[in-house]
Amino acid sequence: MKVYLDAVSTTAVDGEVLDTYQKILSDHYCNSDALYDDGVAIYRMQERSRELIGKMLGVKAEDIIFTSGASEANSLAIKGLAFRHLSEKPHLITSSYEHSSVNNAFRQLEEDFGLEVTYIEPTNGIITPEAVEKAIRPDTLLVSIMTVNNENGAVNDVASIAGTVKKHPHVYFHTDITQALGKCDLDLSSVDMASFSAHKIHGLKGSGVLMKRKHIEILPLISGGQQEFSLRGGTSNAPANIVLAKTLRLALENQKKHRDMLHGYYEYLCRELPLIEGVSIHFPERHLETLLSVSTPIPSEVMLNALNKKGIMVSSKSTCGSRSDEENRTMKAMGVDENYVIRVSFDHTNTFEEIEYFISCIKEIITKYGKTAV
Amino acid sequence: MKVYLDAVSTTAVDGEVLDTYQKILSDHYCNSDALYDDGVAIYRMQERSRELIGKMLGVKAEDIIFTSGASEANSLAIKGLAFRHLSEKPHLITSSYEHSSVNNAFRQLEEDFGLEVTYIEPTNGIITPEAVEKAIRPDTLLVSIMTVNNENGAVNDVASIAGTVKKHPHVYFHTDITQALGKCDLDLSSVDMASFSAHKIHGLKGSGVLMKRKHIEILPLISGGQQEFSLRGGTSNAPANIVLAKTLRLALENQKKHRDMLHGYYEYLCRELPLIEGVSIHFPERHLETLLSVSTPIPSEVMLNALNKKGIMVSSKSTCGSRSDEENRTMKAMGVDENYVIRVSFDHTNTFEEIEYFISCIKEIITKYGKTAV
Repeated sequence: MKVYLDAVSTTAVDGEVLDTYQKILSDHYCNSDALYDDGVAIYRMQERSRELIGKMLGVKAEDIIFTSGASEANSLAIKGLAFRHLSEKPHLITSSYEHSSVNNAFRQLEEDFGLEVTYIEPTNGIITPEAVEKAIRPDTLLVSIMTVNNENGAVNDVASIAGTVKKHPHVYFHTDITQALGKCDLDLSSVDMASFSAHKIHGLKGSGVLMKRKHIEILPLISGGQQEFSLRGGTSNAPANIVLAKTLRLALENQKKHRDMLHGYYEYLCRELPLIEGVSIHFPERHLETLLSVSTPIPSEVMLNALNKKGIMVSSKSTCGSRSDEENRTMKAMGVDENYVIRVSFDHTNTFEEIEYFISCIKEIITKYGKTAV
Repeated sequence: MKVYLDAVSTTAVDGEVLDTYQKILSDHYCNSDALYDDGVAIYRMQERSRELIGKMLGVKAEDIIFTSGASEANSLAIKGLAFRHLSEKPHLITSSYEHSSVNNAFRQLEEDFGLEVTYIEPTNGIITPEAVEKAIRPDTLLVSIMTVNNENGAVNDVASIAGTVKKHPHVYFHTDITQALGKCDLDLSSVDMASFSAHKIHGLKGSGVLMKRKHIEILPLISGGQQEFSLRGGTSNAPANIVLAKTLRLALENQKKHRDMLHGYYEYLCRELPLIEGVSIHFPERHLETLLSVSTPIPSEVMLNALNKKGIMVSSKSTCGSRSDEENRTMKAMGVDENYVIRVSFDHTNTFEEIEYFISCIKEIITKYGKTAV
């Protein structure tokens, strides 16, 4: 039995998305910027996708910039804006537990471009509007706070944070919605920029979006031609861009459709896991029901290996840092020993039988390990 | 009849590449950085592709950085290196007719980061080692000269240029090989960095490589995790990266296999086109045989429309700037009126019948237009 419980790391491409993508790949190869009929046809399909994505997010088509993924979108939002204002030496604000693409973009601006960055620590696992308000200065240019944390499932109240930032007209607000899309309801009305990738919602790897209000000036990171309002060069990956609208629509539909089922999995896990000796779940004050940060009495590496042997795929932290020895900033802020934590995440493609199997394996591994240790 | 004569703009995905890609997309969805078996399996396939690409280019696997395409690779090479040395305020050298991703990367470094850039003008369509030698200063950090120009087919002797640059140990040499790969023989032995994309050689859009010798320090543009030696963040687009080795192998094989056939097309076009009244071909001193820059007595826009109606897809300049009014730097340097130029490019997927059809259409259009004008 193969059980995939690492949905926050990546997801399989949805069958419907895959079919459409393969059809486009076979039938349409022209450059979407070519001016002959076959080029214009693919351009129109891509622009239709941009329009639909804008509608689903409640923004304009002109606010949608196609990128190669969320890391590019995060980098473009943060560095693109900071580079545009570099001579003013602006102050920047983020949290201490952002995804590595956000965290390392800020670190680079700090270390290599001499900007000052404030890193807000979470309280009870979340970032509060009050903490953001306190950090804002007259020279602050940007606040970037993720909507959902990819390691502990914390859900930040970004609508309120965005509202707080909006009271300071000189400050822009960016949020990484990668882990929130299709998982919790979003209100981007006061958000200036937002990033996400397709592969976390059963879309393609190498595909993502930066939502950026048109009036906000940024410098491109990937220089090039007229593509993406001259803010992201390179021949458009039109086939991927075209199926992103479908990917997003399906994710939002599935979110509604499977809410109760996923709540059932969550309740079952919350009831069963703490019954196992030495096992506890770490709940941020507000959190996603589909991502659980779980401590067990067994070192994560040993636990992951044991689960792997049983066909269960689970990780211990962000996959982008799976081979790194760097301290886990999210777990540290929660006062949790990262060496004993595993991250269990699921979505509508998982069955209840899989969740039950996971629980039974965890029990078995801990029992067996206890005996070996003695 | 549909005739595609815009191979320098993009190409259709090779059937064999498409099949493998679709199989990987269906069978393997795990994150290549995940530590369980299915993640490791896809990681190994990706690293095998990196190794093979390195071998085919005559460099090490550790010199291969997967990107979303050539524009990203060009931006990463140029800005990544310049940002790393920003405090030294280095001098940079490029040519005046680079692809927009290179040209606009340098423009940005000039206008927004205060660096000095020398733009070398081509002589007889090409950039000479002598011109490069003359431009190098004690504070020069980087020389970037494309191997093949995407608008006039000029082939620069980059092996000699790289040799010239190598005499100055403080200067790095980068070349955009996007239009050269699979078209002419490459010698990267003295090249420090080189960029290319997959979609110009019958691979996928959204896929490319920066070849960068490991010891050269650059800053990432797309920040993130451990991917690509921590120089290019974001969940790896492993399915695309894996099929890039096959894409490159097929391109190099086809180059050998179809050399004579393509030379035949070239000779035929060079013989037939100048026989048509008012038509001439612009030959840079050294040039590709598969990309011809052709002047006709009819404004390009009218000619492209007329060809389009006959099912022939041809462009007038770089597709990345197809909708831009900006002056065509390549044609200007050749003293050619860009308003009457079309760019005809082909490869092994074109048939001789298609080339004949193109010639007959050009004749017909010019004859008809002459009558209308009278």
